[in-house]
Amino acid sequence: MATSPIAEPPQGDVLAERFARTRALTEALVAPLSDADATVQSMPDASPAKWHLAHSSWFFETFVLRDHVSGYRLYDPRFPFLFNSYYEAEGRRHARHRRGMLTRPHLDEVLAYRAAVDAALLDALPGLWPDGRALVELGCQHEQQHQELLVTDLLHLFSENPLEPALFPPLRKQPVAMPAPLGWIERDEAVVEIGHAGAGYAFDNEGPRHRVLLSAHALADRTVTNDEWAAFIADGGYANPRWWLSDGWAWVQREGIHAPLYWESRDGAWTRFGLDGRRAVDPAAPVTHVSFFEADAYAAWAGARLPTEFEWEAAAAAHDPAAGNQLDTAGPVEPRPSPGGPALFGDVWEWTGSAYRPYPGFHAAEGAVGEYNGKFMSSQFVLRGGSCSTPRGHLRASYRNFFYPHQRWQFTGVRLAKDL
Amino acid sequence: MATSPIAEPPQGDVLAERFARTRALTEALVAPLSDADATVQSMPDASPAKWHLAHSSWFFETFVLRDHVSGYRLYDPRFPFLFNSYYEAEGRRHARHRRGMLTRPHLDEVLAYRAAVDAALLDALPGLWPDGRALVELGCQHEQQHQELLVTDLLHLFSENPLEPALFPPLRKQPVAMPAPLGWIERDEAVVEIGHAGAGYAFDNEGPRHRVLLSAHALADRTVTNDEWAAFIADGGYANPRWWLSDGWAWVQREGIHAPLYWESRDGAWTRFGLDGRRAVDPAAPVTHVSFFEADAYAAWAGARLPTEFEWEAAAAAHDPAAGNQLDTAGPVEPRPSPGGPALFGDVWEWTGSAYRPYPGFHAAEGAVGEYNGKFMSSQFVLRGGSCSTPRGHLRASYRNFFYPHQRWQFTGVRLAKDL
Amino acid sequence: MATSPIAEPPQGDVLAERFARTRALTEALVAPLSDADATVQSMPDASPAKWHLAHSSWFFETFVLRDHVSGYRLYDPRFPFLFNSYYEAEGRRHARHRRGMLTRPHLDEVLAYRAAVDAALLDALPGLWPDGRALVELGCQHEQQHQELLVTDLLHLFSENPLEPALFPPLRKQPVAMPAPLGWIERDEAVVEIGHAGAGYAFDNEGPRHRVLLSAHALADRTVTNDEWAAFIADGGYANPRWWLSDGWAWVQREGIHAPLYWESRDGAWTRFGLDGRRAVDPAAPVTHVSFFEADAYAAWAGARLPTEFEWEAAAAAHDPAAGNQLDTAGPVEPRPSPGGPALFGDVWEWTGSAYRPYPGFHAAEGAVGEYNGKFMSSQFVLRGGSCSTPRGHLRASYRNFFYPHQRWQFTGVRLAKDL
Amino acid sequence: MATSPIAEPPQGDVLAERFARTRALTEALVAPLSDADATVQSMPDASPAKWHLAHSSWFFETFVLRDHVSGYRLYDPRFPFLFNSYYEAEGRRHARHRRGMLTRPHLDEVLAYRAAVDAALLDALPGLWPDGRALVELGCQHEQQHQELLVTDLLHLFSENPLEPALFPPLRKQPVAMPAPLGWIERDEAVVEIGHAGAGYAFDNEGPRHRVLLSAHALADRTVTNDEWAAFIADGGYANPRWWLSDGWAWVQREGIHAPLYWESRDGAWTRFGLDGRRAVDPAAPVTHVSFFEADAYAAWAGARLPTEFEWEAAAAAHDPAAGNQLDTAGPVEPRPSPGGPALFGDVWEWTGSAYRPYPGFHAAEGAVGEYNGKFMSSQFVLRGGSCSTPRGHLRASYRNFFYPHQRWQFTGVRLAKDL
Repeated sequence: MATSPIAEPPQGDVLAERFARTRALTEALVAPLSDADATVQSMPDASPAKWHLAHSSWFFETFVLRDHVSGYRLYDPRFPFLFNSYYEAEGRRHARHRRGMLTRPHLDEVLAYRAAVDAALLDALPGLWPDGRALVELGCQHEQQHQELLVTDLLHLFSENPLEPALFPPLRKQPVAMPAPLGWIERDEAVVEIGHAGAGYAFDNEGPRHRVLLSAHALADRTVTNDEWAAFIADGGYANPRWWLSDGWAWVQREGIHAPLYWESRDGAWTRFGLDGRRAVDPAAPVTHVSFFEADAYAAWAGARLPTEFEWEAAAAAHDPAAGNQLDTAGPVEPRPSPGGPALFGDVWEWTGSAYRPYPGFHAAEGAVGEYNGKFMSSQFVLRGGSCSTPRGHLRASYRNFFYPHQRWQFTGVRLAKDL
Repeated sequence: MATSPIAEPPQGDVLAERFARTRALTEALVAPLSDADATVQSMPDASPAKWHLAHSSWFFETFVLRDHVSGYRLYDPRFPFLFNSYYEAEGRRHARHRRGMLTRPHLDEVLAYRAAVDAALLDALPGLWPDGRALVELGCQHEQQHQELLVTDLLHLFSENPLEPALFPPLRKQPVAMPAPLGWIERDEAVVEIGHAGAGYAFDNEGPRHRVLLSAHALADRTVTNDEWAAFIADGGYANPRWWLSDGWAWVQREGIHAPLYWESRDGAWTRFGLDGRRAVDPAAPVTHVSFFEADAYAAWAGARLPTEFEWEAAAAAHDPAAGNQLDTAGPVEPRPSPGGPALFGDVWEWTGSAYRPYPGFHAAEGAVGEYNGKFMSSQFVLRGGSCSTPRGHLRASYRNFFYPHQRWQFTGVRLAKDL
Repeated sequence: MATSPIAEPPQGDVLAERFARTRALTEALVAPLSDADATVQSMPDASPAKWHLAHSSWFFETFVLRDHVSGYRLYDPRFPFLFNSYYEAEGRRHARHRRGMLTRPHLDEVLAYRAAVDAALLDALPGLWPDGRALVELGCQHEQQHQELLVTDLLHLFSENPLEPALFPPLRKQPVAMPAPLGWIERDEAVVEIGHAGAGYAFDNEGPRHRVLLSAHALADRTVTNDEWAAFIADGGYANPRWWLSDGWAWVQREGIHAPLYWESRDGAWTRFGLDGRRAVDPAAPVTHVSFFEADAYAAWAGARLPTEFEWEAAAAAHDPAAGNQLDTAGPVEPRPSPGGPALFGDVWEWTGSAYRPYPGFHAAEGAVGEYNGKFMSSQFVLRGGSCSTPRGHLRASYRNFFYPHQRWQFTGVRLAKDL
Repeated sequence: MATSPIAEPPQGDVLAERFARTRALTEALVAPLSDADATVQSMPDASPAKWHLAHSSWFFETFVLRDHVSGYRLYDPRFPFLFNSYYEAEGRRHARHRRGMLTRPHLDEVLAYRAAVDAALLDALPGLWPDGRALVELGCQHEQQHQELLVTDLLHLFSENPLEPALFPPLRKQPVAMPAPLGWIERDEAVVEIGHAGAGYAFDNEGPRHRVLLSAHALADRTVTNDEWAAFIADGGYANPRWWLSDGWAWVQREGIHAPLYWESRDGAWTRFGLDGRRAVDPAAPVTHVSFFEADAYAAWAGARLPTEFEWEAAAAAHDPAAGNQLDTAGPVEPRPSPGGPALFGDVWEWTGSAYRPYPGFHAAEGAVGEYNGKFMSSQFVLRGGSCSTPRGHLRASYRNFFYPHQRWQFTGVRLAKDL
């Protein structure tokens, strides 16, 4: 989370506008949902839409209004128990895997809670000190993360319904030519600076900025396509232990994995389920919904490896993090064929070969928000670059996302690398 | 299920009225529900309200309209996959423990499905042959069973919500004196007739009627009260393996069982959760939401045993099955103190010591409806007498309900018996 | 267990000889075992041979020597914790599923413990009062039960070894003709006396003797053969839910059951694993190692049902319980074709359709031995008649064995019955 | 595993001696075992001693004798199925968690198998080409790893026996003063060479040697003691989520972890179970049998962190890897107080904060031995420095061990580090 040494929080009016825009996008995303759509939890890893709506409001209410606005009274004293996610310092809370039991409060009541928090916060904002404003900024960043989860959790929920409902109508797509064969961007051994620096916002896990020595390597100039992935499947990639990490092979066998999540073969052709329902797989688009295990096996099959997060960040430093296919408005987001050159941001989160661990000198922030990142630094892998469901404006070259190696309900994909 | 040798189905107009009344009560029960309330599945044993609404309609649509009305076209060809419960002969179906994923169709769409089936069935009814009418009768009986499950499944769902919502406002209660000490109704050894006989409706598992020899025994003249149960708890009943069956003791320890389901101690007094929210336990009312294991342990502690289902049926033959505390309208049903003499029907299903097994000469009906009862005849125990959530008119002295010995989310209670 | 009203225990010298003979057979059974063979536990339901050896000694030491011989000092004060099976009243004990961790004491040390208990008991026997002698008798009966478990647990252990070792050399077999087609023994409705009566030994669950009304029925004159079972398999019996109880069908699918335990198809023919290794299935021999679920499904497929335990007992009353294929000496016991007429005892335990429940008037004995039978009276089914691994002399017409419906590592088989 | 570019294998006579010495130590370790001790598997992570004995022989038989000695015939064609560990390329194999079912072959038969492999290998050794000799070398290194596992697996097995047997008699211990307060060895930022170089043996995961940039840091001059760990416990360290990674906290709560493995409080003092039975914890000795989660939590509580594997290796380069408390002969090994200065090798494996991942340019060897290391490179953490149960001569500064973060049955301990 943002700590004052790293970043000076924006002034009140800039922050007010950012706050309002962020909150509005969340609400646009849930606009097509019924009360039931917003309530059900489809797996322990996912949360109901209603919970995302309420939890992101609880975050502002707790860390800004309760802690920095004198005389503020909680909207409902029962809500902290319901809508705290994992902050041990904030006391006991509803069990994560039972979030789907909350048929009450109703979606409308949760939206009313949001509106009340919005009004109180916009009212209080002009009088907040910098540490309070920093928490508003953190709350906006936090809500953007929940926007991405909201999209992927809804996709998972709808995929569990045999009716395969479409949350949004499909986009009209431009036919795009298949991308050129993979090219490689080579780099000699070098010491580079890694981690966030400068004035903008960053999470605590992006710092401190420090030097890292990169070995000589090459980075693919684009991500792996569905067409290439289909070739891996056709070559028996999911049936050959040679390509797989031991834990990955156990996972493939235990779960009967044989294709990316949401893929099904219908009448001999691959289809995928998306926010616009079930449709044909686009061969030219980046493959997505693959786990680290699958990404690693694909790379081994392709005679390559996954990049380190440092190789990725060094390459990304020259790119615009606000470019590419990212989330701007509610709709059927999905990775799409990119005709041009290398795009490092958007489309799919790229699995790196780097385990998620702290940087030298890392210290979690004090207090409850200190639980934001540091306590998850075991057994997960870093992903970089954001996806089609990451809100535009949220990303940086130094941004670190992280998931367990078997998880694949996010928009996750693969970029290859090689040693030189 | 009803087989023609047992019962002649009612004539069309009687049946039409019964059908309409049954369907209306189901809809009254779900009237206070939000779309989300009607969608969530709180445990694999329970089903969502929406599913009960649709499944009971699917039953009429499949076994009456599809099979007995020429030219009938399915309302939605995708619904049989969604709303078949366990009829293997009817083909593949949605997994039971994933019923809560069906946020679509919306509650309103399910109600529209119900209305369409109702219209088609009332339209077809005058032209149905007796075997078709028998299936309408079976469908009404089937729907009554789902009314009871609907009530108990909703109670379970709401109990999982930390807000402890009340589905209905509480009833104003009449103060009732504590019941008199338990009396015993003695009976010498005798051969009795057991099982359904005569013209009325009965399920296949209630027959054939046959002779059974009862040993000399005594049956308690009322069920065990909350007050008596609290004495069992206070005496360490849940902590002493001496009273428990081996499987029951393992269950108590594994699940941390220490009181009936929905009981919690607040400020030193027992409370229970009900359809009207959390309230004080009424000491004079029959204890409910106890498992067979608990019932059996209580009986051992009390120096008694559970009655056999035959002892119960022989005693019940002289009683009116439509009397007592049963379900008439939507509302906060619960067992209540009964001031008068022995009431065998209503209030709580009474665990018997009889394993659920077929009667001599039992044959399941042919076809899909043959899966109604017979295939569940292992490892379950028989309950008799109906409960406060059994629709009035559904019960008979020969009626056999059955659950696994650890289950207790139904309105289940205890009547003691003794050998003489 | 034996209670004094039921049976007067034998005089000292008869008992001493019975005791010595029983103990000797146990030791003969384990003679071919290595220390490792005697130590490993192959599943939670089974116990290591060493544990059977020690536990049966602990039983005599605890309930006879400790409780009835003044001044007796425990052989090793740590052994009660290790070798108590499930007697809650005897205090804490080693977890059942961890019995295979006891590599120490060594097999030789356990045998030394046995020898010391034997010596002390034979020394004390002349001075025991009837209640002490009754416990010696119970201990012998108890040890006979463990002899049967010892044989079946060893068979299971060896079946888990890919080397498929033979514990004993195979017997030379006489060629026996296939049995004649199944005949039926019919019986009209009648009231019969059920349960143990008279002077001999019996367990508490065999009483009290009481009247039961049998419906008119027919009982098969022999058990089902391997040949008949193979026809059930060939007809798709394991793949058709129509024949199965719901719990049984779930078990078949979850566990991938497709034939009796220990059967494997090799080069197109059925083989079975036995105490003499893997050999061809004998088509004329009774099928064995089938669960209640399989037995019930077979009966449904055959248009019949399983007998009740009372039908079986009434038929068995006229037979000699010490006749037939039972355990006399250590060796590769297995069911064998029986050329003659109906044999009700020996070969295979016959699944009945009766749930294991107490008889009218049943009361468990006081004290720790009161846990012997009564606390297992839920969710299990009664088997009758004994098997090829039941020690000869142990059986009676009233004898009740019981297992869960999915269990099949005992020598369990099927006799059909029909309603008339 | 060793690949020819890295190391030239030793000449035949040197290798023969090394081979003989290695094999002899293994046999000395199992000398006190009974057949049962050598057979039982106490948990899926551990293997029976007999299996270690046979598997290490299978390794030589398969990769040397079968592949490099013409005309060699397998000792027993059934053994590869039994004693292959995880080499997918070598075909199907006995399930890992069922290794404890192999009561046959007997311990003596396994020792005979060892003797036969030994004789054949020593016979063939003079005629082997360098690639064959390299595999003999690899086989010795492999067997040393299994010696360490053998010791720790036996310790775990014996700890599961309520008798708490001592495998070896206790050593007479010299009283040693408590170590001085922790000192810190500081180091400025620097680029260092990491990984194996030179003529000696190394596993494939230790290379290629490459440059790494170390940040400025300080490394503790000794490992954490039992005394210090007891202070962490006394301060409520196991009960405060603040110190724990999220996965670690879930593990602590799920498993009820409250002290290092094998610690128990008896009469108010900490004891530990060891190869010499249960004895008092030595406050001056290094703490051992702690998981990564515990190590990380302790470091957080102490205001420090775990070292990276590169910081450790850079510090260790100047130390003698054959010095310190390591395994020389069979006996009750355990960490012991070290009076002198910093000892990086021996006593306890030191958890590092580095996830186990490949070095730049890493490629697994071709063929079955290519499965030796690379496929385990996910979700595990690197440990460095060896332990009291690592055979002396096996270690190097570049040596990388790896376990999952919850595992703690190895001799694992903690050295702190700090950022400067």
